[in-house]
Amino acid sequence: MNQILIVGTMAFDEIITPFGESGKILGGSASYISMASRKIYDGDIGIVSVIGNDFPDVYLEKFTNKNIDLSGVRKLENEKSFYWKGKYHNDLNKRDTLITEVNALSHFTPVVPDKFKKADFLMLGNLHPSLQKSVIEQMDEKPKFIALDTMNFWMDTAWNELMEVIEMIDILVVNDEEARQLTNEYSLVVAAKKIQQMGPEYVIIKKGEHGALLFHKKNIFFAPALPLEEVYDPTGAGDTFAGGFMGQLAKNGIINFDYMKNAVISGSNLASFTVEKFGTERLESLKKDEWSERLEEFSRLTQFDIELI
Amino acid sequence: MNQILIVGTMAFDEIITPFGESGKILGGSASYISMASRKIYDGDIGIVSVIGNDFPDVYLEKFTNKNIDLSGVRKLENEKSFYWKGKYHNDLNKRDTLITEVNALSHFTPVVPDKFKKADFLMLGNLHPSLQKSVIEQMDEKPKFIALDTMNFWMDTAWNELMEVIEMIDILVVNDEEARQLTNEYSLVVAAKKIQQMGPEYVIIKKGEHGALLFHKKNIFFAPALPLEEVYDPTGAGDTFAGGFMGQLAKNGIINFDYMKNAVISGSNLASFTVEKFGTERLESLKKDEWSERLEEFSRLTQFDIELI
Repeated sequence: MNQILIVGTMAFDEIITPFGESGKILGGSASYISMASRKIYDGDIGIVSVIGNDFPDVYLEKFTNKNIDLSGVRKLENEKSFYWKGKYHNDLNKRDTLITEVNALSHFTPVVPDKFKKADFLMLGNLHPSLQKSVIEQMDEKPKFIALDTMNFWMDTAWNELMEVIEMIDILVVNDEEARQLTNEYSLVVAAKKIQQMGPEYVIIKKGEHGALLFHKKNIFFAPALPLEEVYDPTGAGDTFAGGFMGQLAKNGIINFDYMKNAVISGSNLASFTVEKFGTERLESLKKDEWSERLEEFSRLTQFDIELI
Repeated sequence: MNQILIVGTMAFDEIITPFGESGKILGGSASYISMASRKIYDGDIGIVSVIGNDFPDVYLEKFTNKNIDLSGVRKLENEKSFYWKGKYHNDLNKRDTLITEVNALSHFTPVVPDKFKKADFLMLGNLHPSLQKSVIEQMDEKPKFIALDTMNFWMDTAWNELMEVIEMIDILVVNDEEARQLTNEYSLVVAAKKIQQMGPEYVIIKKGEHGALLFHKKNIFFAPALPLEEVYDPTGAGDTFAGGFMGQLAKNGIINFDYMKNAVISGSNLASFTVEKFGTERLESLKKDEWSERLEEFSRLTQFDIELI
């Protein structure tokens, strides 16, 4: 049975949107990724992360109740948890960070639990590239599939380390702006080619409300974001996408372009729910028949009969 | 056999992109729309437009050689043709208008030739809504299908006239910005609903490089723009899309959501060629095996096997 190991943050978010204020709620890349993976995949899922002394037990239980392994989550008794407060603009594509308290995260030394050292699927959430690399190096053998998320900040501050870890991975998952900065290319097709030359065989470029592109050699697949009447809170959409993607891959167990298309659709599908409420709320309440029904919507949204033409 | 009647501009464009300058070339909505329709549809296609005394015969021959009827094109002997000069920014999504000389267009009184008064498919390119309406009123009977393009300028300056003509049409084809201004709604799903309440049963919202959405009642279909390595000149992409769309509908002769999906794909496909060179150049040289091959690319880009999930 495939294992999924997820490295990322577990944190407090406080989100202001035009529709309301969340107050302090559960956030962090590992939270979204693991919960999204769990929706699709029944096997072993573990998190490597760090929290502070203020991280509530009820939050931890959200994971353990879903049989998400937290043996790789270290609690620092003298630190508080990572905390981010942000405010979205009216159009929700832009946001301002109001507060970032790194707290426990500044002391994060990821330690992979023995039971996950042979994990087949490794998802490296957005963190300092040296930390991401150290996780790969702790594995007993190279996982079947390593996915990595990163951001502009590391391109600006840790370029060499980022290049080193990108060389070791199978897929890079970034947004359009990040892909452009990473390659200095405006065309996403050219950018994806350049990224493939840096190491990863596959590249996903997320375009937010405009969907996501999957690249592999000369193949391109496009998954739209589901057009929604209302987006309530975009926070976590990208991590939910990544989690659904990894969950689907682990479920199928096969790494090729066709299976990966489905994984991209699965991730897009789950992300379309996350944005309906604050934080992980919608993801937590999501039932299987809801997301399988929406998969049919994705199908109706994009499938056509070219024979008619 | 279905007839397509196209009302729009025939003009001079002068285009500056980061890749070069076009000099004065053939432009105008009716030019792109008719040439794109002709790629797909073999039946009667006619244009209603106005040109000045400077419009070269070699431009007119581009249409007559393709058996595009110009009996509705009026030449004003004392006027020059409409002329637009614009410069695209590096990212090609933004452009500045450098010169607009309305010239002959300010005296445009569209007259529908008798032979096209029973046309089944009427495409009203972006013009003053009163002119668009006068064309509908000249038809012997309501065409089977009326499509209308418009722009923000008419929303600002001729709102009531625009509402009158929108009530008479079957499909509105606008871009995302225009849909938002027309409805004062940010969500394109909500905007499309509001537009349908204004009259048209179908709505297309173009998102440029992010594709196009087709709405009909509760149904939504999304056609991506083909991810291209290089976009050379985006001018005319929207009109090419509309022309391909109408050509495909006329070819099939059936107006329903499924056929319209294919028409949206056909339009997107042709538009992906138009942007490869300046003006109508690529569209003119385009061979059928080229565009049918690229249709397969569209299929590979978006089709997936949901059964695998």
